[in-house]
Amino acid sequence: MSPTNPVLSHHISSQFNEDLQDVHTKFMTMGGLVEQQVANAIHALLDTNASLAIDVQFQDNTVNQYEREIDEGLTLILVRRHPAASDLRMVIAMSKANTDLERIGDEAAKIARIAQDLCDEGESPRGYMETRHIGNQVRVMIHDALDAFARVDAEQALRVLLADADIDREYQSAMRTLMTYMIEDPRHISRVLNVMWVLRALERIGDHARNISEQVIYMAKGFDVRHTSVEEIEEKVQGHPH
Amino acid sequence: MSPTNPVLSHHISSQFNEDLQDVHTKFMTMGGLVEQQVANAIHALLDTNASLAIDVQFQDNTVNQYEREIDEGLTLILVRRHPAASDLRMVIAMSKANTDLERIGDEAAKIARIAQDLCDEGESPRGYMETRHIGNQVRVMIHDALDAFARVDAEQALRVLLADADIDREYQSAMRTLMTYMIEDPRHISRVLNVMWVLRALERIGDHARNISEQVIYMAKGFDVRHTSVEEIEEKVQGHPH
Repeated sequence: MSPTNPVLSHHISSQFNEDLQDVHTKFMTMGGLVEQQVANAIHALLDTNASLAIDVQFQDNTVNQYEREIDEGLTLILVRRHPAASDLRMVIAMSKANTDLERIGDEAAKIARIAQDLCDEGESPRGYMETRHIGNQVRVMIHDALDAFARVDAEQALRVLLADADIDREYQSAMRTLMTYMIEDPRHISRVLNVMWVLRALERIGDHARNISEQVIYMAKGFDVRHTSVEEIEEKVQGHPH
Repeated sequence: MSPTNPVLSHHISSQFNEDLQDVHTKFMTMGGLVEQQVANAIHALLDTNASLAIDVQFQDNTVNQYEREIDEGLTLILVRRHPAASDLRMVIAMSKANTDLERIGDEAAKIARIAQDLCDEGESPRGYMETRHIGNQVRVMIHDALDAFARVDAEQALRVLLADADIDREYQSAMRTLMTYMIEDPRHISRVLNVMWVLRALERIGDHARNISEQVIYMAKGFDVRHTSVEEIEEKVQGHPH
């Protein structure tokens, strides 16, 4: 638990805080695991490492277990502690972001399964450059979203939202390139399709990192910024000091 | 509000119940809208109806507005009423299922966007039979999941989980067929890809209907059945009478 967390530090001594801190610690641990899962899935794919690909799929069970435990912990806090104000916002934000973390884990497992198939076929398809590039961007997004969550940092969360718009553009451009490969050489349609599924999974991971960042802004500022343009969010976050 | 709802009827006269009922009504209204959005998106695609496709994309804003309002309502209930036991389970289930409904709306809007593109191109691609077939199954799933939610009916929710396994199989088979079309006639790669994106969106809608059904089982029985095999869930639901 970071000592700079402004929501947790204001009632540092209470039993309530201990409970909330336990769940928060578990949430951050799950976040670290999910981040590693995405990194490993991409490595497994780019290095055609079948055993790493299998490991990522296996570890998805651990992520799922964290999801349950975190929701259980949050429900107990609601029953026993009746949190209000910023504490309740943190509980709600963790409940929502927990779902997103688990879905990121699912997407990592999907990428790993495709990696495993490609390893079995023993050849690298085109589109690896695009995958590496977008993969790196998405990894940075997850890391920054979790860091923003740990520090309840709305400004950092805002930067993640801006990064997601970039990834969406790169994704569109990569998909067009891959379609060109398909048309040029239809013999490789099935493998290029696999790369497309990987890119789509990465793009969705970016969406989930954005969702987590929206919850950080809710936690920090109390605004529900879902379905709001980045410009409007920027105004809200910067116009209303914490 | 159905008078048969067992969770709501046991404290029919309290202010708390009125608040919960208001949010529940809104949730069911949102569910009906989302169900219609999916139906319209599929119609827009199959009948190349561009104005309907545009309407679905526009209506997504209404779905998003419901999502915010439902979460606001649930937060107020938590702050003011400190629900416990089955009431708290209903609040948590609605909070989770609300996210799934909104994502179904997103997928419907994606299908509608593809429908609009295909209308502009003015020609029907192959794969329509598959889309119609899986589309109908998914519509039934959403309907049944929402019906199970309204009646807190774990048995019906279980049937939705079984249907989702069917859809996943049909989806895999349809994707293989579409890949064959691509390889046979590479000139139509881009349009067959569009049909693939539609099928993937439908498959995801099925996943969200399954998630909603898992929340129904949580609400009815208190079990977290996420990441559990259908056989195990069946045993839990049928082995533990309400």
